[in-house]
Amino acid sequence: MSAMKKYTAEGLGTFALVLFGCGAATIAGVSATGPSGLGLLGISLAFGLAVVAMAYTIGPISGCHINPAISVAMCVAGKLSAKDLIGYVIAQCIGAILGAAILYVIATGSAGFEMVPWSLGSNGWGEGYLGAYDMKSAFITEFVFTFLFLMVIFGTTAKKASPQMAGLAIGISLALIHFVAIPITGTSVNPARSIGPAIFAGGIAIQQLWLFIVAPLAGGIFAALLRKVFVDD
Amino acid sequence: MSAMKKYTAEGLGTFALVLFGCGAATIAGVSATGPSGLGLLGISLAFGLAVVAMAYTIGPISGCHINPAISVAMCVAGKLSAKDLIGYVIAQCIGAILGAAILYVIATGSAGFEMVPWSLGSNGWGEGYLGAYDMKSAFITEFVFTFLFLMVIFGTTAKKASPQMAGLAIGISLALIHFVAIPITGTSVNPARSIGPAIFAGGIAIQQLWLFIVAPLAGGIFAALLRKVFVDD
Amino acid sequence: MSAMKKYTAEGLGTFALVLFGCGAATIAGVSATGPSGLGLLGISLAFGLAVVAMAYTIGPISGCHINPAISVAMCVAGKLSAKDLIGYVIAQCIGAILGAAILYVIATGSAGFEMVPWSLGSNGWGEGYLGAYDMKSAFITEFVFTFLFLMVIFGTTAKKASPQMAGLAIGISLALIHFVAIPITGTSVNPARSIGPAIFAGGIAIQQLWLFIVAPLAGGIFAALLRKVFVDD
Amino acid sequence: MSAMKKYTAEGLGTFALVLFGCGAATIAGVSATGPSGLGLLGISLAFGLAVVAMAYTIGPISGCHINPAISVAMCVAGKLSAKDLIGYVIAQCIGAILGAAILYVIATGSAGFEMVPWSLGSNGWGEGYLGAYDMKSAFITEFVFTFLFLMVIFGTTAKKASPQMAGLAIGISLALIHFVAIPITGTSVNPARSIGPAIFAGGIAIQQLWLFIVAPLAGGIFAALLRKVFVDD
Repeated sequence: MSAMKKYTAEGLGTFALVLFGCGAATIAGVSATGPSGLGLLGISLAFGLAVVAMAYTIGPISGCHINPAISVAMCVAGKLSAKDLIGYVIAQCIGAILGAAILYVIATGSAGFEMVPWSLGSNGWGEGYLGAYDMKSAFITEFVFTFLFLMVIFGTTAKKASPQMAGLAIGISLALIHFVAIPITGTSVNPARSIGPAIFAGGIAIQQLWLFIVAPLAGGIFAALLRKVFVDD
Repeated sequence: MSAMKKYTAEGLGTFALVLFGCGAATIAGVSATGPSGLGLLGISLAFGLAVVAMAYTIGPISGCHINPAISVAMCVAGKLSAKDLIGYVIAQCIGAILGAAILYVIATGSAGFEMVPWSLGSNGWGEGYLGAYDMKSAFITEFVFTFLFLMVIFGTTAKKASPQMAGLAIGISLALIHFVAIPITGTSVNPARSIGPAIFAGGIAIQQLWLFIVAPLAGGIFAALLRKVFVDD
Repeated sequence: MSAMKKYTAEGLGTFALVLFGCGAATIAGVSATGPSGLGLLGISLAFGLAVVAMAYTIGPISGCHINPAISVAMCVAGKLSAKDLIGYVIAQCIGAILGAAILYVIATGSAGFEMVPWSLGSNGWGEGYLGAYDMKSAFITEFVFTFLFLMVIFGTTAKKASPQMAGLAIGISLALIHFVAIPITGTSVNPARSIGPAIFAGGIAIQQLWLFIVAPLAGGIFAALLRKVFVDD
Repeated sequence: MSAMKKYTAEGLGTFALVLFGCGAATIAGVSATGPSGLGLLGISLAFGLAVVAMAYTIGPISGCHINPAISVAMCVAGKLSAKDLIGYVIAQCIGAILGAAILYVIATGSAGFEMVPWSLGSNGWGEGYLGAYDMKSAFITEFVFTFLFLMVIFGTTAKKASPQMAGLAIGISLALIHFVAIPITGTSVNPARSIGPAIFAGGIAIQQLWLFIVAPLAGGIFAALLRKVFVDD
């Protein structure tokens, strides 16, 4: 497989993740007319099922990380080269930004849309952000759930596991993380997914972006180091 | 496999897609009494899961396109003959019209039902249509999501992919597209699915039908041409 | 496999279908306090996922019909002996009645519960029943959807299909049928599932029971006769 | 596989089950601002999908019981040694308590959170607990559904079954149990899952804890004894 095809696949996958996940939250999370909006359940499933769809689409090409925290953890675990790590992360960030850009263009086509703080599905915390959780809860949430997310990834892709079911189980675990964490941080566990919408939302979404880079990367690295205590590899 | 059996299977599948998807939206999307209606989440899952069910039912016979945008893209990619393309598309349109017809007969059995603009789950846009998005957003949405839909189809049915999981991943991706796009266009990405209910709804649903033929076909052809940049085939 | 073990398995499966499906509708469909009720989406998934769970539990033993309309169609298609047909249908009806009995005992443990017409998830139609659809719509709905249900069953269990995915696809198709049909008839497509709660609900649920025996059996037989036009067998 | 790795895996899995399931109920079950809360459907799926994710993550290591009622039933059925039973149950309880501890720390990071009776997703019954069901309904519910849960587990892991699909079917059956039983007991069928949050909730959650130990264990043992009547093993 050529390196460029792998990077392009990672870009496409992260593009889809942001467009489906942040798009569901922005366009259909709450509905003023007609059928009721997606709610926390539908938004959670949007992110999780986007991973399921992409896992079976680009998994055979790039492994479908579509998340710098996964790529860094894979590098720490010796499963991704440093060169590919750079290519993957750049492609993921470009894909996420393009996804947010398309979402911005589509969303502004409705007279009812207006940019407010944390628009376009941006991550955040504190007063004014959904459940108004503090920074400590936000950090623990992002750290612990990225750790769990990576344990699922290491476990389901281990030698004795069922390779066909890994994509399904990994996507389901991302949905589960959103089930709990949307009211706290909107749920990142993925720096690229946070960077995309923050660039267009600006303001406080940019100011709080650091946590959604630091905590997921720390949780992912922690999982890479501890994984053999829990799962076979 | 005889050609006629393939066409009949495509007709059955598109019949089911319209009856389940547009039926869910029309009959159960909003509920005035008893349990709350399906909402955007349930309607999205109706379309997506209809593809999952049909993929494992008629996939072994016809490949389960049940969508002219898919059949045209497959023809462009050299995976469907021009003769079969015509047979598939005619069967799909007949199936979609029959599905909408049965839905019309059932729906009019409730005193509470009345035909309004865009009835029976018709696609549309603009003032009075759900989120009131403009035509530019509608076109971009249908184009981009049909492109992504076809990338999932090409990727999940490629040689190195998991053939058993393709139907699940493809159906999930159609659900995801609905998660985002219902407030914008009701979500077509499938000319046959738009033609069926529009014939019975008439009026503005017919006037706007062109976009749901042009944009999905363009997005599908674009994916067929670019697919090798992203996925293996 | 001994005949008695097959019948017992069918009894267990139909017991579970009624307890999960009708139980979800009765106990959790609407919620007055705490989190919002399951709604039409959750009730639909209860019936569909009960089939998924049972398909992988008793499928290897009895084929997991848990529905007289399926057993009759299988007999017409030459896939079930007349002797087993009788054993299956008796076991299914006993299982359904026991499921409704347990549900009745549990439900009456809440001071808030009272028996009203069509209690315990009974099927029905007309004024006072959810969407108030007429008998013609009810009959067409039960006939057409049982036909489609059986086409999915014949297609997903055919020789060229993916045997591992059949249970998932069949259960999903039952969920889809509920997506559309709950407001019309509550959704039967299964005489045993209708008989169970009707016995405890009594009154109009008993008077309307005939339709939920005749229409599903007719739809199933029609599918058995026409199946080779659409799917391979 | 070393015994300690198996126990650690059981601890991780039960930690995840409590954090995802009780976390979804506590943090996102009801939403005061923004998208609507998860509701009974979302909370049910949180518990069920947590089992699916963990089944494919730690299943190859420990079998993914993450529930003392399962481990006891497996021991009665001769599929788990008495020594491992003790190790499994201790690890499950530690995991559940840690999961509840993390949830407690995160939840108290919101000014809107306050401890009330049955906090953190604790199980219970009676006046003030959701549907206000009596103790008899609570006991029957926990007994019957643990029995059914174990029948699914024995059936889906039998020799002729589809091993790849077992984790999915088992998780789905836990979701189904929650579909029905949340208004009655909050749904335990798992003593460890009940012990975790009760320790932090205190009060009535502790006083009612006995039922969520006795009834699930009794239902599980009953299934282990009767299983060969229904399924092959």
